[in-house]
Amino acid sequence: MAKDKAEDYSRDIFHRGRFCLIQPRRCGHRSGIDAMILAACLPRDFAGLAADFGAGSGAVGLAALARCRQARLALVENSAFMLDYTQKTLNEPLNAAFAGRVRLIAADIGLKGQARAFAGLADNMFDFVLMNPPFNDRRDRPTPDDEKARAHILREGLLEDWLRTAAVTLRPQGGLALIARPQSLNDVLAACRGRFGALQIVPVYPREEHAAIRFILRGIRGSRSALQFMPPLILHGADGHGFLPRADAVNNGRQGLFD
Amino acid sequence: MAKDKAEDYSRDIFHRGRFCLIQPRRCGHRSGIDAMILAACLPRDFAGLAADFGAGSGAVGLAALARCRQARLALVENSAFMLDYTQKTLNEPLNAAFAGRVRLIAADIGLKGQARAFAGLADNMFDFVLMNPPFNDRRDRPTPDDEKARAHILREGLLEDWLRTAAVTLRPQGGLALIARPQSLNDVLAACRGRFGALQIVPVYPREEHAAIRFILRGIRGSRSALQFMPPLILHGADGHGFLPRADAVNNGRQGLFD
Repeated sequence: MAKDKAEDYSRDIFHRGRFCLIQPRRCGHRSGIDAMILAACLPRDFAGLAADFGAGSGAVGLAALARCRQARLALVENSAFMLDYTQKTLNEPLNAAFAGRVRLIAADIGLKGQARAFAGLADNMFDFVLMNPPFNDRRDRPTPDDEKARAHILREGLLEDWLRTAAVTLRPQGGLALIARPQSLNDVLAACRGRFGALQIVPVYPREEHAAIRFILRGIRGSRSALQFMPPLILHGADGHGFLPRADAVNNGRQGLFD
Repeated sequence: MAKDKAEDYSRDIFHRGRFCLIQPRRCGHRSGIDAMILAACLPRDFAGLAADFGAGSGAVGLAALARCRQARLALVENSAFMLDYTQKTLNEPLNAAFAGRVRLIAADIGLKGQARAFAGLADNMFDFVLMNPPFNDRRDRPTPDDEKARAHILREGLLEDWLRTAAVTLRPQGGLALIARPQSLNDVLAACRGRFGALQIVPVYPREEHAAIRFILRGIRGSRSALQFMPPLILHGADGHGFLPRADAVNNGRQGLFD
């Protein structure tokens, strides 16, 4: 478990000062642009209850709350190690403005049936689910850090488990958005089959001439509408490391990805 | 069957005069940019035997032969109506330069086992397969034209049939490229599973701000490498209907899609 020594964690500012995250410095998962892009998938005028599956320090959830002023949100996390940071994040004075709109659910997203409901994940409870599933294949990037492994490694069947729980805990016509690596596309689509339709894919390219590093998938529970590729998100210009204007606006909560 | 009245067919020039197609004017399938983009997937220095599955008038095959000077190619078509046009295309004086590098296989791509081999589609015979499968869902665009229906309507299981035949008739490590509508992505990926890897997807956008109208998928038989999203192909600029420079070069055989 984390000790409260200053060097064990960092306090990182997002959305130009609108919220901060308390994140483990040396192990576990640290959030960045992926979380900001995912949070940008929630419609700006969303006024229901959203969930951040695998919340970690709360990056996706707080970014969504900061941009969508009427949203309420449940941070869902199972790792006791990371829950310590989720709670520290919520305790930060800078984040006090979100207190009335956010709650924490300590639950294993892979649970089923009564065990899932008992853990706080009831059927039809959410209007939107956001998820950034662990995405490294164990074979291609072994990590000696157990907590990082828990956040990063895509174990067999995890996408199926997470998308099943998303489908059950969403109301009919509820929304889904996830961010994943291109190599997971086939498994993501297979797990959506029969559960989510009106799928919209946004490839995320580091630069115009490079292969995509991530894709966003948005969908609607129970829809039978056809899949679409939406305009790509390109992060950087040909030279320089700064973000292009749209990527910068998405990263700082000033623009939704589908607005 | 087509009669040889002038009004029954058109003679259309492609690649700025490098080849022409004899196409039915009033019914059946007429080729355009889709075929040119697909043909652009064959590597420029390709020197083996490629196949154009569902060749129609021969647009994909001739475009590939025009750009890849060392390629040999088999036009595979099953419709007697369209085979008439395939043959007319090959008989055109402008296309005489390709005569030594092209052959016609009249075969149903959905055949299996000995029947498939008897029809001329032998195991491991191709180095690359190009396909533009019929892609309209019968429900969303009914057509009263039987020949157009045959070319355009994606019957249940057709993608599975075509990709199975592609996998069997390709040599190990042979290449595949297809063009399809985004709504077919899930079925295409499902049919590739266990057969093709190193998948590369290129979304094709009409304009930067619009949803994609097609995607290209390229893959390698038997590969286990991860899927990638490659840089998108954008056809038109924000104003005007002309092609952007890269799309124009692809459409006219001056640039491969992956070069």
